[in-house]
Amino acid sequence: MSGVGSLHPLYEVIARRRDVREEFTGEPIPPDVLDRVLSAAHQAPSVGMSQPWDFVLVAGATTRERFAAHVAQERAAFADELGSASPERRATFDRIKVEGIRESSLGIVVTHDQRRGGPHVLGRRTIADTGLFSTVLAIQNLWLAATAEGLGLGWVSFYREEFLRDLLAIPEPVRPVAWLCLGTVSHLADTPDLERHGWRVRRPFADAVHHESWSS
Amino acid sequence: MSGVGSLHPLYEVIARRRDVREEFTGEPIPPDVLDRVLSAAHQAPSVGMSQPWDFVLVAGATTRERFAAHVAQERAAFADELGSASPERRATFDRIKVEGIRESSLGIVVTHDQRRGGPHVLGRRTIADTGLFSTVLAIQNLWLAATAEGLGLGWVSFYREEFLRDLLAIPEPVRPVAWLCLGTVSHLADTPDLERHGWRVRRPFADAVHHESWSS
Repeated sequence: MSGVGSLHPLYEVIARRRDVREEFTGEPIPPDVLDRVLSAAHQAPSVGMSQPWDFVLVAGATTRERFAAHVAQERAAFADELGSASPERRATFDRIKVEGIRESSLGIVVTHDQRRGGPHVLGRRTIADTGLFSTVLAIQNLWLAATAEGLGLGWVSFYREEFLRDLLAIPEPVRPVAWLCLGTVSHLADTPDLERHGWRVRRPFADAVHHESWSS
Repeated sequence: MSGVGSLHPLYEVIARRRDVREEFTGEPIPPDVLDRVLSAAHQAPSVGMSQPWDFVLVAGATTRERFAAHVAQERAAFADELGSASPERRATFDRIKVEGIRESSLGIVVTHDQRRGGPHVLGRRTIADTGLFSTVLAIQNLWLAATAEGLGLGWVSFYREEFLRDLLAIPEPVRPVAWLCLGTVSHLADTPDLERHGWRVRRPFADAVHHESWSS
């Protein structure tokens, strides 16, 4: 195997990428940097070249406050459920920050439009979800580009889709897929937050690889 | 804006990445390269650090032949549907190759296990699909790493999930999410196949970006 020095710089970005909550500093993002990061997302692959994603940039403090209040409610609901099952797990969860909505430089809401590409999307006939998958591929491009630019990104998922739809006036059938917190950071943590706080460990790589069939 | 020369090499990988069908040469992939590409996938973010993906490597000719025959049937079914709506679109589609199952070096079937992480996955309570989204994020890491290594990757989606489940003995409730053709290539095309063959054009970037709410 070749030495680390000869590896493509992509690998360093993939290893350095974190789901950021704690490290946002809230400085503005230069417009050219933001353009590059969003353009990277827009260059993602998509089923039948449907390009079903959109990006709603949310800078406004009022919208962010309202979303953060909703997320706080949903966080509390999860904590209660968890506490009923395991007080110890709840205590671990209580130490974990789950969003940086107000502290980040910008919110980016990524949406999915299953109508894009018309009624005959090439490659989507047997698996409707491949449309949604395309939008998620764009998110990973965005995440890696943000990391390469020295920014942090955190995906917030403690929300109800209908709340976010109403908040940003997203029309049916367009579906909000993610609220991404994007922003300048003090640093990126060496280990994932959930590992650092004892929530969960990394699965051994070898366990994830099978040969020729599931069972082998 | 800084010149292209100072951009992170990630951007070149994102721009060069293609959904490959025609350019596979079928040479073996060095084991260390394959390990790096799969490890990149395994370092993807996941909701609650659930890491719900698995990778089934399919080299066997018989399995690939059976899958290719199934895909040919589904391709024909799409062509028929399309032909009823628009003979012209069907003629365009007839020129497009939709898979490189036998010509690629290796098939990689990516699966999703919603059980991973137990009943209380942090961040998945209100949106069950965030589990599936995690598996798709891993696919984009894999795709970019393959591109950085000079390999080609093509996502085949002309299949029925139950067929692929049976073919590889994937147990319920594990869900096959993608058949990825990975392999050595003669080159990567400058433009996406679907654009080159006149199926669909790239959407202007500016159309995908909104400010503060959907309608603006």
